[in-house]
Amino acid sequence: MRKILVIHGPNLNKLGQRDPVLYGTATLKELDDKLIELAAELGIALETFQSNHEGKLIDIIQTTEADGIIINPGAFTHYSYALRDAIADYSGPVVEVHLSNIHAREPFRQQSVTAGAARGQISGFGFDSYLLGLRAAVNLLDGES
Amino acid sequence: MRKILVIHGPNLNKLGQRDPVLYGTATLKELDDKLIELAAELGIALETFQSNHEGKLIDIIQTTEADGIIINPGAFTHYSYALRDAIADYSGPVVEVHLSNIHAREPFRQQSVTAGAARGQISGFGFDSYLLGLRAAVNLLDGES
Amino acid sequence: MRKILVIHGPNLNKLGQRDPVLYGTATLKELDDKLIELAAELGIALETFQSNHEGKLIDIIQTTEADGIIINPGAFTHYSYALRDAIADYSGPVVEVHLSNIHAREPFRQQSVTAGAARGQISGFGFDSYLLGLRAAVNLLDGES
Amino acid sequence: MRKILVIHGPNLNKLGQRDPVLYGTATLKELDDKLIELAAELGIALETFQSNHEGKLIDIIQTTEADGIIINPGAFTHYSYALRDAIADYSGPVVEVHLSNIHAREPFRQQSVTAGAARGQISGFGFDSYLLGLRAAVNLLDGES
Amino acid sequence: MRKILVIHGPNLNKLGQRDPVLYGTATLKELDDKLIELAAELGIALETFQSNHEGKLIDIIQTTEADGIIINPGAFTHYSYALRDAIADYSGPVVEVHLSNIHAREPFRQQSVTAGAARGQISGFGFDSYLLGLRAAVNLLDGES
Amino acid sequence: MRKILVIHGPNLNKLGQRDPVLYGTATLKELDDKLIELAAELGIALETFQSNHEGKLIDIIQTTEADGIIINPGAFTHYSYALRDAIADYSGPVVEVHLSNIHAREPFRQQSVTAGAARGQISGFGFDSYLLGLRAAVNLLDGES
Amino acid sequence: MRKILVIHGPNLNKLGQRDPVLYGTATLKELDDKLIELAAELGIALETFQSNHEGKLIDIIQTTEADGIIINPGAFTHYSYALRDAIADYSGPVVEVHLSNIHAREPFRQQSVTAGAARGQISGFGFDSYLLGLRAAVNLLDGES
Amino acid sequence: MRKILVIHGPNLNKLGQRDPVLYGTATLKELDDKLIELAAELGIALETFQSNHEGKLIDIIQTTEADGIIINPGAFTHYSYALRDAIADYSGPVVEVHLSNIHAREPFRQQSVTAGAARGQISGFGFDSYLLGLRAAVNLLDGES
Amino acid sequence: MRKILVIHGPNLNKLGQRDPVLYGTATLKELDDKLIELAAELGIALETFQSNHEGKLIDIIQTTEADGIIINPGAFTHYSYALRDAIADYSGPVVEVHLSNIHAREPFRQQSVTAGAARGQISGFGFDSYLLGLRAAVNLLDGES
Amino acid sequence: MRKILVIHGPNLNKLGQRDPVLYGTATLKELDDKLIELAAELGIALETFQSNHEGKLIDIIQTTEADGIIINPGAFTHYSYALRDAIADYSGPVVEVHLSNIHAREPFRQQSVTAGAARGQISGFGFDSYLLGLRAAVNLLDGES
Amino acid sequence: MRKILVIHGPNLNKLGQRDPVLYGTATLKELDDKLIELAAELGIALETFQSNHEGKLIDIIQTTEADGIIINPGAFTHYSYALRDAIADYSGPVVEVHLSNIHAREPFRQQSVTAGAARGQISGFGFDSYLLGLRAAVNLLDGES
Amino acid sequence: MRKILVIHGPNLNKLGQRDPVLYGTATLKELDDKLIELAAELGIALETFQSNHEGKLIDIIQTTEADGIIINPGAFTHYSYALRDAIADYSGPVVEVHLSNIHAREPFRQQSVTAGAARGQISGFGFDSYLLGLRAAVNLLDGES
Repeated sequence: MRKILVIHGPNLNKLGQRDPVLYGTATLKELDDKLIELAAELGIALETFQSNHEGKLIDIIQTTEADGIIINPGAFTHYSYALRDAIADYSGPVVEVHLSNIHAREPFRQQSVTAGAARGQISGFGFDSYLLGLRAAVNLLDGES
Repeated sequence: MRKILVIHGPNLNKLGQRDPVLYGTATLKELDDKLIELAAELGIALETFQSNHEGKLIDIIQTTEADGIIINPGAFTHYSYALRDAIADYSGPVVEVHLSNIHAREPFRQQSVTAGAARGQISGFGFDSYLLGLRAAVNLLDGES
Repeated sequence: MRKILVIHGPNLNKLGQRDPVLYGTATLKELDDKLIELAAELGIALETFQSNHEGKLIDIIQTTEADGIIINPGAFTHYSYALRDAIADYSGPVVEVHLSNIHAREPFRQQSVTAGAARGQISGFGFDSYLLGLRAAVNLLDGES
Repeated sequence: MRKILVIHGPNLNKLGQRDPVLYGTATLKELDDKLIELAAELGIALETFQSNHEGKLIDIIQTTEADGIIINPGAFTHYSYALRDAIADYSGPVVEVHLSNIHAREPFRQQSVTAGAARGQISGFGFDSYLLGLRAAVNLLDGES
Repeated sequence: MRKILVIHGPNLNKLGQRDPVLYGTATLKELDDKLIELAAELGIALETFQSNHEGKLIDIIQTTEADGIIINPGAFTHYSYALRDAIADYSGPVVEVHLSNIHAREPFRQQSVTAGAARGQISGFGFDSYLLGLRAAVNLLDGES
Repeated sequence: MRKILVIHGPNLNKLGQRDPVLYGTATLKELDDKLIELAAELGIALETFQSNHEGKLIDIIQTTEADGIIINPGAFTHYSYALRDAIADYSGPVVEVHLSNIHAREPFRQQSVTAGAARGQISGFGFDSYLLGLRAAVNLLDGES
Repeated sequence: MRKILVIHGPNLNKLGQRDPVLYGTATLKELDDKLIELAAELGIALETFQSNHEGKLIDIIQTTEADGIIINPGAFTHYSYALRDAIADYSGPVVEVHLSNIHAREPFRQQSVTAGAARGQISGFGFDSYLLGLRAAVNLLDGES
Repeated sequence: MRKILVIHGPNLNKLGQRDPVLYGTATLKELDDKLIELAAELGIALETFQSNHEGKLIDIIQTTEADGIIINPGAFTHYSYALRDAIADYSGPVVEVHLSNIHAREPFRQQSVTAGAARGQISGFGFDSYLLGLRAAVNLLDGES
Repeated sequence: MRKILVIHGPNLNKLGQRDPVLYGTATLKELDDKLIELAAELGIALETFQSNHEGKLIDIIQTTEADGIIINPGAFTHYSYALRDAIADYSGPVVEVHLSNIHAREPFRQQSVTAGAARGQISGFGFDSYLLGLRAAVNLLDGES
Repeated sequence: MRKILVIHGPNLNKLGQRDPVLYGTATLKELDDKLIELAAELGIALETFQSNHEGKLIDIIQTTEADGIIINPGAFTHYSYALRDAIADYSGPVVEVHLSNIHAREPFRQQSVTAGAARGQISGFGFDSYLLGLRAAVNLLDGES
Repeated sequence: MRKILVIHGPNLNKLGQRDPVLYGTATLKELDDKLIELAAELGIALETFQSNHEGKLIDIIQTTEADGIIINPGAFTHYSYALRDAIADYSGPVVEVHLSNIHAREPFRQQSVTAGAARGQISGFGFDSYLLGLRAAVNLLDGES
Repeated sequence: MRKILVIHGPNLNKLGQRDPVLYGTATLKELDDKLIELAAELGIALETFQSNHEGKLIDIIQTTEADGIIINPGAFTHYSYALRDAIADYSGPVVEVHLSNIHAREPFRQQSVTAGAARGQISGFGFDSYLLGLRAAVNLLDGES
């Protein structure tokens, strides 16, 4: 059974407590539950991981045995070239997702230094960004198998 | 029955003949067929529209009776503030989609002047960008109804 | 009898429905009526034109027999060098007008690529921007006759 | 009776002697006379003030009892954030005016740091910029009363 | 018999009336006549097209059966990425021409966003830019046949 | 007895009437009273000065006999290199203070051209910025005596 | 009893050994002792934390039970948007402090990407930046209670 | 007898006390004495003026009866467009001088917004910049008489 | 008999050995032969010159007795303002040519500092750029005689 | 015996699996072996360290007892000012090395924010960059002893 | 007897033939004669040198036995860092001069990369720039002897 | 026997006399001697060349029969695209070297326009930069043979 790893970047563990206008009031646990539910429906294994440490995100990308990755790099999106390299070096498909529409926020958030190393990017649909990203990843795996 | 309008911007009518490495060899007709198929599955009406004319894209956004819009603004993405205004003035949800990963292309293609007025953006998954966009739009309509 | 052409650019046909905080709730028809009323008072003929098509705005500037032009280029203000050239080639006085104060809005709206080819610019006074623009145009014609 | 204060910024006292191609040959006195005449016609009191001192322009904005202000900040337009703050703090409507079309001049003159704090800006119509500005200010007062 | 399409962009229909110092006093008809004459001499068919509408320029590039294109994109040169894409997607050689020397004009005119998608650019020689462009296009077709 | 001079820049005399969200509703007089009270407590003499005139701020920096200066340059912070030079030439410690957090405001307010010539900067704490600045200045004097 | 957390960013553990002209010769331990002493005097509990790991700084901001934070983000000040988000998400007051006057150093050090998410910033007073920051934080807590 | 006005801008009254490495230890009085001495030698009347007030520098340029001006605008050099306009409006020759070599100092000091309106600029020779400037001004007057 | 001088800038002597994808495999000698052949056909004398030395290119422009110049400045195109001045000072027509399409290459090659001083520029047609340039130069001479 | 510490930054543990065109197919282990071999030859002890964690790289620089450091900061090169500070604070010589020629890669990789704090930089020679760096470090130690 | 070397950069040998509005109609020979005359008057030997070759200008600066240098680097002013280094390495005083006022010309001419390595700069006074420069150089030599 | 050419760019002939803090007091002759000594040790022939003339550096790169090149382009590093092209056209390996650490100097020296065309760059180790560069070049030749 193929497996997808979902990576949540810095501060996403605080979901539900962060600015509710932007991010809603549901928690990361609730998001993960929805993802697991959809994964089951799509016949795919799913693991999730959260860290505020750039190094740990890189470590897990390097060591995971998952066939594809969904990643919300959080604020690392805007400066972590090290994360970009890890994504570029990873052999499977990577889908970058964002809860909020980064193109409608502060200028510094409108630039992604990581997305160029991913297959694609989905931003602005709240939890649905992840769920759509999961579909995208599965479809990419299907297309490659 | 709710309706979604899918708008294809300039040069997308040439799909299948455009740079096949970037855009694949399937045609716009084939893409539209896939969208219609998924729409039926999701219980939603779907109309499609293509034009190379910025003005016509604005006209249809202003006059459509659709409940939501999926738009690939093509190269207008990078400079058409007039299109941005039309998107901003439209009352329903708008999802911006791109076939290729614009963050991995020329610098001028990495900036979207329209996405900030949409609800979100999906880019890099080929035809799947549209199909995911359709799901996103339907979910947004569901969330608002 | 001298004639003034009033040109409304993209999305201005939606006046009354656009963001009411910025643009008010009155319609383009109501604006045109006010202009016709003032024109009559000033002893000048007045025609109005609206289009979302950059090319049609250029066409009418090239073919009008009006003695002067009042133009609100809408979002074309910020990138349409083609419109700028049409304005520069027109033989009579051109007055650029804006409903909102473009200097108090997003950075991209603070630059006008067309105003440098007009005689002057009036921005920020709602419908009064047009009415003052009409007076300005008439005075320019008077000064030149 | 409502009162409007007209403020002329640096070097405008030299009007008539400054570059006649840009600014014409009439003097500030002649401009003020025209303004007084129109004010009388519009049933409004009018006071004028000129200074080359940024501080004096701020002082008068802070202490005037006028109901509205017309200001040509001259070259302060391009760098005086202190003047901008004074305009922003003033409770009545402020109209920024310029004799020449600043959008058709040197790059540094195309940016106004003060206009964003005013209600609107009129530029390019010579003395008529002020006269139109007076009408704009009176209309703003009317709209607010 | 091979055919070349000559495309004139916005405001070029006003040739002869536009700024005569920059563009001369001869009309577009006179230019087209010279091109037809040279085409006959070179044994090639020639069609011409002018429009102020970006969309129409893209439409004709997509639908023409000509073997090569000479295009003066006018002011679209400086911002129309949609036109650039149409040029890039066209299968035959495209030669960009300009009447005036764009490198000696305003800064915004010194950048071409379209030329990178063409085979080459000729600028500064008045009508001769087109005539040389015609020779260039024919030579490119010869080199490829 | 050592003396500190507190300098308030342009528009600070309007404190209490300026944007109350940013600056609160207390007046400059109330601020000065708090400073005098703390100065007494710290065993230091204190003088205050306010002007909207850049030149007067420079004059007083040059002529004061105070042992240290606390200055809120207001909007001069962002462009007055002349004030910067006066601060640099002054022999005692200078502390720059701001009521609001300038790093959270408009881009032009996030740059201080004067702070580089001061010993340090305190911003964002309302009246407390001044009171902390007074402590900082006294401590600097203590450290140097 | 209310509690303040003092966070020292990267390389601050080397205080006393770092460039003594900029940072002095006293150690972090000596700084912490001074802070504890002042906290006692102000009737507040105080904890300190130092790490060279961006992730650990974010972790502690998320998990601390302190009522307010004083943070010297060290070089993270200039690029860590992840830290900025953590500060923005924290519910209590945050005071950013710097030992040296960052406005008088290299251009890259003159920009703070974190300060905009804090309540205010104090920079340039050596250890006193922290001590003043402690007073500021206590005052903010007082003002909110 | 022709007359030259020498204008010293902000902070130059502190000459002799300012950074002695850059500006030397001699006073403004000593500089003025040297200028008067050379003027006498050259058969020209000479007046000097110093102010820290931008407005006063503009006032004197507008009202002086001198045939030519030597001006060291001090830090106004780098932002006072109002001073630039006053220089441009003045009918006689203006020579800009600087004691230090502004091209070897901080980036912000390497740009002069005033020099473009003067006849020429002399910088880097200490007092000799003024003395050479006096010769230059006299030669310009000679050349024009 | 009129004469044209053809100037080849740095590294062009290596033609045939340079990157063959960009520049082809034919040598400079072969290019010169083609130019001489066309010149004979057009009834004009032709001289050629190559140097890697900026100074020698300037020397020959200053001393040539040719009636017109065709110049490929090579990499000097992108920084040699001295060459630009020599071109501007030359009395006859100058045509700038490039083998490759500089608008489709590295960013630094897309800017020409010399073309603004020439009559026009032809780029992208390989050897044909020179041959078209020769026609352009002869036509310019014809137009001026 | 003197000791050199070799630090490998993020993603370098994947050497041999990373883009083989850029980085070759040999592993980090093989690189370390070559370094140990050369160190032995040069009579110096050598330790190696790899981490994807910025904080761990800083920690080891602070705590190592090595006499000199060779560091390949990987992607941290382009943004980690915290690493720069750690390098600057370290008392022995630091040599920055890169496998690929960073000056021939993407624009963001052409800037090093860390190299300015090191003694020097070697880039572009694959494993040999490290081996040359080891010689450089030993020579620097020799020069200082 | 002390000696001054006067260096004329590229295109200055064409003086009298270059744009007469900017540079006048007198020749380099006439300029040199005036310099020799003044040198004699000041009791100093004077040599002159002109070249269009950057390398020759550097060679002569390295090998001259003159005690001071006056240099007009012509267009090298704007990009020749090699010339800048030669000036910086030269042991005697160097005075940079320009005939025209470079601050009133094209943007690229307003920046001098060489002046920062000279003692000072004189620009805008035609031949008098050189004559004043000669006085400046002699005074500098006097001050150092 | 293979041969390496060592090229020293402008002003390097003055080594030993140039700023001794940056460049040391040893001469170019001493550097060349060290290189010859190491070359002998490595079994390779070595030639050296110095010039202040950009054109001569290009000439020798084009005509040398050496198998590899070590070049210190001096200040040409920062603007000579012509030199860059010569390096790119050269068939053997090229190693760029710098005595000082260019990343720790003025902003303009931190950019190399030539290094991108070389195999790699070594900077900051004084004479050792050249000696390491010689090893690098020999290793590159070894790797390719």
